[in-house]
Amino acid sequence: MTDRKTVSNVPQWQYRQGATRRATRVVPEEVPVAFSYGGSTHAVMMATPDDLEDFAVGFSLAEGIIRRADEVLDVELLEAGSGIDVQITLRDATAEALTARRRRMAGPVGCGLCGIESIEQATRDVPEVTGTFKLTPAEIRQALDGLAKGQALNRETHAVHAAGFFIPGEGLLAVREDVGRHNALDKLVGAVLKAGRQGAEGVVVVTSRLSVEMVQKTAVLGSPVLLAISAPTALAIRTAEEASMTLIGIARGDDFEVFTSPERVEAGVSADVA
Amino acid sequence: MTDRKTVSNVPQWQYRQGATRRATRVVPEEVPVAFSYGGSTHAVMMATPDDLEDFAVGFSLAEGIIRRADEVLDVELLEAGSGIDVQITLRDATAEALTARRRRMAGPVGCGLCGIESIEQATRDVPEVTGTFKLTPAEIRQALDGLAKGQALNRETHAVHAAGFFIPGEGLLAVREDVGRHNALDKLVGAVLKAGRQGAEGVVVVTSRLSVEMVQKTAVLGSPVLLAISAPTALAIRTAEEASMTLIGIARGDDFEVFTSPERVEAGVSADVA
Repeated sequence: MTDRKTVSNVPQWQYRQGATRRATRVVPEEVPVAFSYGGSTHAVMMATPDDLEDFAVGFSLAEGIIRRADEVLDVELLEAGSGIDVQITLRDATAEALTARRRRMAGPVGCGLCGIESIEQATRDVPEVTGTFKLTPAEIRQALDGLAKGQALNRETHAVHAAGFFIPGEGLLAVREDVGRHNALDKLVGAVLKAGRQGAEGVVVVTSRLSVEMVQKTAVLGSPVLLAISAPTALAIRTAEEASMTLIGIARGDDFEVFTSPERVEAGVSADVA
Repeated sequence: MTDRKTVSNVPQWQYRQGATRRATRVVPEEVPVAFSYGGSTHAVMMATPDDLEDFAVGFSLAEGIIRRADEVLDVELLEAGSGIDVQITLRDATAEALTARRRRMAGPVGCGLCGIESIEQATRDVPEVTGTFKLTPAEIRQALDGLAKGQALNRETHAVHAAGFFIPGEGLLAVREDVGRHNALDKLVGAVLKAGRQGAEGVVVVTSRLSVEMVQKTAVLGSPVLLAISAPTALAIRTAEEASMTLIGIARGDDFEVFTSPERVEAGVSADVA
């Protein structure tokens, strides 16, 4: 167990309208978080030290180490130097598969021929998503408002990203926050799986820009709609197309823009297609 | 050489005030960029395919592979699958040092005992920065305005980060943009070094939040001031303190907040310290 705080109140000098005064500001904490499987470290991320059990499950899924939440038998958080070591115990079969994969990966660092292997790995195929619901503009607004309400850490710090899971007819199942937008989404994915829900049941809502990794993580969860306050990259759009995912960006107030698979949005969105 | 475009104009459905119409939006491109040294891939990043020679130099410095720009003899950009392979040729002595380091790192993936080794690596000591200039509030405003003017890609897309280098008395030396904030800063560092300037001469200005890596990269460049539109994390503040760096955040219009080493800011910033 760790007992890290997620924010600090720091002293500062505020310069306002030509005058300076001593003040304080609440800022988010950021710590190195290591993920270890069978005692062997897989990766280290800078993250907000909150919801690390969710993070462990979501990260393991995104990395392709597990396919279902119940392949993680146990998550233990250990203080390790200036950071936190997240020790993950996998089911036997999953652990054996990881060990076999590691053995194949072992060898000199950087074994990709001219980078092609590593490049193809970075844009690996995404699974196709399915989902039977259609979203109304009112539900899109409800999902955005729900996300804003759930951003407790951001209300204090104005400096962290959030990811939420909105189920039509139910509302926001969970909201997770982190200094890193990828981490916030990994934590959310872990929370959805641990709640026993399916990605196909709802919409992933994020505060951040939509880079390709956000689409990849949403596709691995199996959610058919990714909704963001900010804009997508061109590669994120192409990847969403490949996954048959509905990508909605620049969603503010009652306005939004749909980039792919508009058939999941009601409101005559595809009515005036030329 | 590659001839990648940096933006795409994509079709979309715009929902505004209850009505839907077909429209287009300019979005930034994002491609896998591999960095290879001596033909062996070191890392792959998702990045905007612009200023990749600067990126190669800045990334090599941030990774501790080089200490000076002239240790990079040549940078060649090759199309590789869906991405770009940045082939970097180092000076002989530097290449030998990298090979020796790689040999030490070889072996099973994830060799850190309980993650401690990897965690300490993530928060490694930062070099102390020095610099003789003092900034006035007017210069801080000038640096922010100069950065905004230099954000050509963001004016088109509203979706990319920027990093700039402001030299008091001269203005903005360079601005670099990328879908990733770390990449934008790496590109800027490369541009500063390739221009033959020293980090100690100026201020790094960024649009993004200040996580610890932004402070680490600025310290490695040797710049004494890091100025950001957004807020810092607690670890970024502690790391700036350790580097004796002046950290200025939440800088908007004429207002800003100083978190560390306020003696480099004029305006009686440290006048009313209790």
